[in-house]
Amino acid sequence: MDRPTEGLVAFPDLRRFFAPRRAALVGATEDMAKFGGRCLRQMLDFGFMGDVFPVNPNRTEVFGRPCFKSLSDLPAVPDHVGIVLPAQACIAAVAECGRLGIPFATVFSSGFAELGTEASRALQAELLKVARVGGVRLMGPNCNGMINFVDRFALTSTATISGPRRQAGDVGIVGQSGGATQVNVMWRAQEAGLGVSYQVSSGNDADLDLLDYMAFMVEDPQTRVVLALAERVADGARLRALASRAAELGKPIAMIKFGRTEAGARAAASHTGAVTGADAVFDAVARQLGIVRVNDAAELYEVAMLLRQGKRPAGHRAAALSISGGNLVLLTDLAADQGISFPEYAPETVARLRGLVPGFMAVNNPTDLSAGAIGNPDIFGQAARTLLEDPNVDAAVPVLTIAPKADIRAIAELAATAPKPVAVLWTGRCSDDSALTPQSLVAEGVAVYRDALPCAQALSRTMNWAAFLRRRQDAPPPVPPPGCDAAAARRLLQAARPSPTERSARAVLACYGLHGPREALAATPEEAATQAATFDGPVVLKVVSPDILHKTEVGGVRLGLPGPEAVRQGAAEILVSAARHVPQARIEGVLVQEMVTGGQEMLLGMARDATFGPVLTLGFGGVQVEVLRDVTFRLPPVDAAEATRLLDELRLAPLLRGHRGTPPADIPALADAIARFSWFIADLGAALEEAEINPLAVLPEGRGVRVLDALLVPRR
Amino acid sequence: MDRPTEGLVAFPDLRRFFAPRRAALVGATEDMAKFGGRCLRQMLDFGFMGDVFPVNPNRTEVFGRPCFKSLSDLPAVPDHVGIVLPAQACIAAVAECGRLGIPFATVFSSGFAELGTEASRALQAELLKVARVGGVRLMGPNCNGMINFVDRFALTSTATISGPRRQAGDVGIVGQSGGATQVNVMWRAQEAGLGVSYQVSSGNDADLDLLDYMAFMVEDPQTRVVLALAERVADGARLRALASRAAELGKPIAMIKFGRTEAGARAAASHTGAVTGADAVFDAVARQLGIVRVNDAAELYEVAMLLRQGKRPAGHRAAALSISGGNLVLLTDLAADQGISFPEYAPETVARLRGLVPGFMAVNNPTDLSAGAIGNPDIFGQAARTLLEDPNVDAAVPVLTIAPKADIRAIAELAATAPKPVAVLWTGRCSDDSALTPQSLVAEGVAVYRDALPCAQALSRTMNWAAFLRRRQDAPPPVPPPGCDAAAARRLLQAARPSPTERSARAVLACYGLHGPREALAATPEEAATQAATFDGPVVLKVVSPDILHKTEVGGVRLGLPGPEAVRQGAAEILVSAARHVPQARIEGVLVQEMVTGGQEMLLGMARDATFGPVLTLGFGGVQVEVLRDVTFRLPPVDAAEATRLLDELRLAPLLRGHRGTPPADIPALADAIARFSWFIADLGAALEEAEINPLAVLPEGRGVRVLDALLVPRR
Repeated sequence: MDRPTEGLVAFPDLRRFFAPRRAALVGATEDMAKFGGRCLRQMLDFGFMGDVFPVNPNRTEVFGRPCFKSLSDLPAVPDHVGIVLPAQACIAAVAECGRLGIPFATVFSSGFAELGTEASRALQAELLKVARVGGVRLMGPNCNGMINFVDRFALTSTATISGPRRQAGDVGIVGQSGGATQVNVMWRAQEAGLGVSYQVSSGNDADLDLLDYMAFMVEDPQTRVVLALAERVADGARLRALASRAAELGKPIAMIKFGRTEAGARAAASHTGAVTGADAVFDAVARQLGIVRVNDAAELYEVAMLLRQGKRPAGHRAAALSISGGNLVLLTDLAADQGISFPEYAPETVARLRGLVPGFMAVNNPTDLSAGAIGNPDIFGQAARTLLEDPNVDAAVPVLTIAPKADIRAIAELAATAPKPVAVLWTGRCSDDSALTPQSLVAEGVAVYRDALPCAQALSRTMNWAAFLRRRQDAPPPVPPPGCDAAAARRLLQAARPSPTERSARAVLACYGLHGPREALAATPEEAATQAATFDGPVVLKVVSPDILHKTEVGGVRLGLPGPEAVRQGAAEILVSAARHVPQARIEGVLVQEMVTGGQEMLLGMARDATFGPVLTLGFGGVQVEVLRDVTFRLPPVDAAEATRLLDELRLAPLLRGHRGTPPADIPALADAIARFSWFIADLGAALEEAEINPLAVLPEGRGVRVLDALLVPRR
Repeated sequence: MDRPTEGLVAFPDLRRFFAPRRAALVGATEDMAKFGGRCLRQMLDFGFMGDVFPVNPNRTEVFGRPCFKSLSDLPAVPDHVGIVLPAQACIAAVAECGRLGIPFATVFSSGFAELGTEASRALQAELLKVARVGGVRLMGPNCNGMINFVDRFALTSTATISGPRRQAGDVGIVGQSGGATQVNVMWRAQEAGLGVSYQVSSGNDADLDLLDYMAFMVEDPQTRVVLALAERVADGARLRALASRAAELGKPIAMIKFGRTEAGARAAASHTGAVTGADAVFDAVARQLGIVRVNDAAELYEVAMLLRQGKRPAGHRAAALSISGGNLVLLTDLAADQGISFPEYAPETVARLRGLVPGFMAVNNPTDLSAGAIGNPDIFGQAARTLLEDPNVDAAVPVLTIAPKADIRAIAELAATAPKPVAVLWTGRCSDDSALTPQSLVAEGVAVYRDALPCAQALSRTMNWAAFLRRRQDAPPPVPPPGCDAAAARRLLQAARPSPTERSARAVLACYGLHGPREALAATPEEAATQAATFDGPVVLKVVSPDILHKTEVGGVRLGLPGPEAVRQGAAEILVSAARHVPQARIEGVLVQEMVTGGQEMLLGMARDATFGPVLTLGFGGVQVEVLRDVTFRLPPVDAAEATRLLDELRLAPLLRGHRGTPPADIPALADAIARFSWFIADLGAALEEAEINPLAVLPEGRGVRVLDALLVPRR
């Protein structure tokens, strides 16, 4: 369901941005107390193979190298220029880049939109304009630069890369923030044993933005997982296209999205002026697009340990193994919370385990080897391999506390060679080799966790991601359900402008196969009685007049009329009462409607999100539900299978499956209605300010759904 | 509200258990592949100042020391004996302890109740019996022993204490499990920089249990915080008494309770045969008793870093400070989720901050110093001190990434001297002193966190704990609300055995001031009309007869009768109809009841918990609520203030405060009813199998509550 916008979005080619042949720094200095000094030092020390040109009109030499007066004086055109100047002076520097045909510039300087003043925003706009005119693609301003571990190019002042250069790895890391991205994620990932391919701290994103850098890493063969720390996502359509491409390549993206809480969103706004859409929308959309959303910085590299292996667990069933029973209980609790189950083993697995461990009678999952395995170096690894080979098991969690090298190596070997993921929970240390550490295992490529919760979280997220890829593969191409007539809906909507009545709103929705109760317009009481006889059960009567808005107040509504006589009399009374209350009203007749009772009332709506635009909303109707905010979201369109998954995200969903004697609801009809409404939004959402079906009555199995009330507000 | 059971529970004096003058090990050996060898080695190497007597009939010497044939051969009576023998042989060894007057024995051996067989349970019962007969208090069986860092006595085989002995500290740690408690909590806490006073891995808890060791640590002046990892809590009343004593001393207890999920409970049962009560009950009771409940092992020592300082934040308002804006946004998100707010500073604080940082105009909380503080070693610490002194601020979170020693030392100084808690979030390292690490700061007594989530969690839990102590201090002594007549209730309940009718159930509850709709018994239709006239609004009529169970089916009920004439006629019809349907029925008359409409329906019940016995249950009524399981719990009794807090734990609580035009409910009357019902349970719960008011109608403000239906099932 992520294909509709795919072809429309192109991401820039950033190969020369990340791996320039030559680079320059405007504002170069030897003063290590200054940004320009620290940044230049890193450029020189990081192993860059191309030329580095320092630029400063007041110096002829820095760090023993020739310094140039200006960019125009350089002996060759650099691919990427860093700029460390007072904010105002950056404009001219970027303009000069443009004149010289320099394709990429990074403006480190602050003093732009992040200040939140009119003048600072104007200055950033001017910077962007100059870049556009000159054909320069810009990172920043107010940023901390980038690092390419693969080609050994650093353009940043961060102290995280001082000291010996770390080995390049396969984890790409992007963020708008400097400290949080470079320290909390990159440096900490490296300390934990992971290798990084590229890192970007992109600041205000005036031109190039987070998604552009992520797109480079998604395409880059060196990078196997992309981690993002986003204060804002500017364009939901581009995120969707990026996620779709990543899914196509099977390359996972994990993301922290700031501003989850109201307080957090305020803090983000005051940090970089970010305006974010609703967090609940982002959360649901991330699930829909297969983006692994996490909450804290450590969770990013923790999930990367498993995701980078590219193994795709076939389900959410794990096996766990330990000699520490307490650890298994703790893991089980925390894993169950994350949707991981520990199934019974196949009889063959049980038999093999019994053969392996003498006197091992009660073979359960999680598997407590207790003292049975202590002192026998082979048993632990062999038992783990046996569990992992069980057909009921999608992944294994060997749990180590203080363990001998032989056990640890056996598990590392299993993790490296098994086709199913192995998440190692290692809470202690190696008892006989102090060089063997969790870090050293991670550096070998093993996923190692120090605590049960991060272990269970990372495994569950990897399982969810694999499930997303399976769903995506199985999903048919997105085509509207039969009988959706966008052209007719547009015509009717246009005709009903500026304020469609409920009746015309329902007529528009009927073009998508979304129907209300059966109904007919009757001109006379006699006709009303005849029509009512064609429906099952009691009916509702409503006066129809363009001049009467509040039907109830003029006595224009009757509910639950049981037979022809009651209908005839009711219709007559309505006509008389309406004419008496609004003598000048043009009365078109009486609407005879099937009376819908006994259904579950739900809400289908459209939310306009600041990031994603029109978004499908689904929830239960009623007062309690407003209190519970039991709603969920999707980018339209969705098919009926995705619509059914949507229902599972509602806490009240069990009400639909039949509860305490109420019959199960017609879930296939509901899923079909959700899919239809999602196509309606996909096709007409751009023309609508608001769209809502509330309530949608979901009748018992086999009886379908009915649009009981609808509201459409066209955009001005 | 934790006082009622306080005086009834006594905990044993375990001073000689933890700090024996002499100790022995039965099953001593030099073989380090065996438990007895490893355990003896630790006893000898850990710095114990008293005698250690190895006991083994087959040896005359171990590790160069004389070895004794039996306990009877020892030159002096030890205070504490460890036993490492085959399970069967432990019985005789414990019997011998009894004969010799040895007060404490630790049975390490497995092969007892944890196997789950009839024979193994019988063996454990035999072990306990022999201990009781001999007056020996027992730890284990199936345990991994204990460590006393204060007096340097270790009786355990754990590898976590091999190598140089760690400094004693003030964190006490108990658990039934060996690996999880000793590795995940104790060793990791020490690795993080914390010092431990005592540690216990108590196994099957056949005699002494987790609460006994905790009680020792609660009383012990060396211990400032107690951490527990509980697979089971055997006796809720003892936990309550222990928590009450800890609160009295202001000593915090933090706890992991295993078996949170169904899967976890199953795993716990197969690990040590633990049967646990409902997790939701434990969770609510922990809040009520001021026990800090956490989920994962690391969270135990993380919260201990703050709790051990003994500082009590006055509220949930924090200030945060950093030069990394991204880190502040992340922290704000995660802290807001944990109930921590970041209030605006007082004007004076803002002015002082502006004076401190040149050009610092936009002073917000969290406070982003950005580059303003870089290069000026004094500013960061001074700013942090300024924030913490703000009257709106209860605690500070200084956030460091890669920071110079001067800044870190300034923060450490502030943390050590300030009366308000300082939780340091330090995600990186020290830039100019590699010996200055998070661990070294923790060892100095500072609370240091590596990530925002654990930092926010630990701070929030500390704030919650301080709030509990304030509430406890302010709470009046627990006395029943006026008009609770336990004796009358007991009499009525006794008279209604074995199956009280709804009517007699309501009569019992009325003894506690819990009343249904106003009602009166009328013998004749005329009397019914007279009675009805004394109520406001319409009434309900019900036939009253001991011979008619299903009143509606015999035409014995009328609803919503509006005036005297309708009541008279309705009563007459009921009497006729009932007599016709059940000619032999003894008809006592017609019950005239106030008809209650427009209230919020709630449920007040009693749950019988395996751990805590009778527990108060509160929830919303109705079908949706069964799906949501929107209920909460308390140990009875509670007062009205606690009852009001109970309401806040329900997701649907906003419904009571008035929503979409419905008037606010009579919350004071509801709180009073909860308190009354809680006293009813406290007084009569032991005699009841079930007790439930469902629904309790909570009418609009000033109109009170009504018991609409009630069920009492006496215990057989």
